[in-house]
Amino acid sequence: MANNIPSLDRLIDEFRKMPSIGSKSAERLAYYILGLEDTEIQSLTSAISDAHSNIHQCSVCRNLTETDVCPICQSDKRDRSTICVVEDARDVAAIERTHEYKGLYHVLHGVISPMNGIGPDELTIKELLARLSDNTVSEVIMATNPTVEGEATAMYISRLLKPFEINVTRLAYGIPVGADLEYADEVTLSRALEGRRTI
Amino acid sequence: MANNIPSLDRLIDEFRKMPSIGSKSAERLAYYILGLEDTEIQSLTSAISDAHSNIHQCSVCRNLTETDVCPICQSDKRDRSTICVVEDARDVAAIERTHEYKGLYHVLHGVISPMNGIGPDELTIKELLARLSDNTVSEVIMATNPTVEGEATAMYISRLLKPFEINVTRLAYGIPVGADLEYADEVTLSRALEGRRTI
Repeated sequence: MANNIPSLDRLIDEFRKMPSIGSKSAERLAYYILGLEDTEIQSLTSAISDAHSNIHQCSVCRNLTETDVCPICQSDKRDRSTICVVEDARDVAAIERTHEYKGLYHVLHGVISPMNGIGPDELTIKELLARLSDNTVSEVIMATNPTVEGEATAMYISRLLKPFEINVTRLAYGIPVGADLEYADEVTLSRALEGRRTI
Repeated sequence: MANNIPSLDRLIDEFRKMPSIGSKSAERLAYYILGLEDTEIQSLTSAISDAHSNIHQCSVCRNLTETDVCPICQSDKRDRSTICVVEDARDVAAIERTHEYKGLYHVLHGVISPMNGIGPDELTIKELLARLSDNTVSEVIMATNPTVEGEATAMYISRLLKPFEINVTRLAYGIPVGADLEYADEVTLSRALEGRRTI
């Protein structure tokens, strides 16, 4: 970067490692840091270290949490007969924001992806099967992403769940609310037709 | 954010304060932090604190530096008869990247902007005048941005420099190299015509 300021270059490099932060943004962030007050720096660095050291996986559903068992798994207001299987913790946050789902979750922490060397054993599938052994669960909703890998993972897990005689469902495909039919891709549109409902 | 994870929400808030980081990016950065190794967290937080505590203004040119006097002001390879006046430290870095300029700098740390309550006294103009008193400087290049405020600041300073009998110059205006004439705005295009040179 030719700033002639080693600790500035080091900071820019750290920011550049972050997702979707390019050289220009990294530089802008670094100069922002230089302009902060001492107390703001303290608050930023402690937020980073605290989040990193306090947050770990829930021992039941593998969602991120600060407690041993996450608030969702602990809550007696949640429906323990339904488990929604998602790829990562961000998907839990997205579904929670709908305020529609009252069941439990299971976070896989990825999808099966032979291209990236990720097989079923790298995911939390064993932990999911263990949760089904006491027969309290009657439905498992496969909410992996509608990508090739998300689909394959949903198929793989649903086949594993056959012996449990549990109702395995998949999120509905269709046109996104507020979208324009004209711009919907053919696959989405044919899925929306297939899944049409009486009104 | 309804993550139910206080230290994650706190971290997202810290990232959201940063320039050009929206809610979605802040969330992505926070999850990136959670996925780092302990040593990477250590390296990130120390880069932030170190940069913040080590970097201050050069006592001569007010550029950012880790030493009392910055490497440019200290260097005996730089032409001490020319001072290039810029708005902030990022402009120094930009000009240094051209490898064309061999003189010294003076960083104003802003521009005169009555709308934002910034008058000449908030800038390092006094320090610039002090540097001219020993008569070693023969040219001052006004390299503030070609904005209304940058222009006004350049005009204001050039008037202050009149008594010193120093050659005060301004960066050339014109069409950016590689740009398309068709898309150049009228003001830039007329400045480019005004400043035309024999080839």
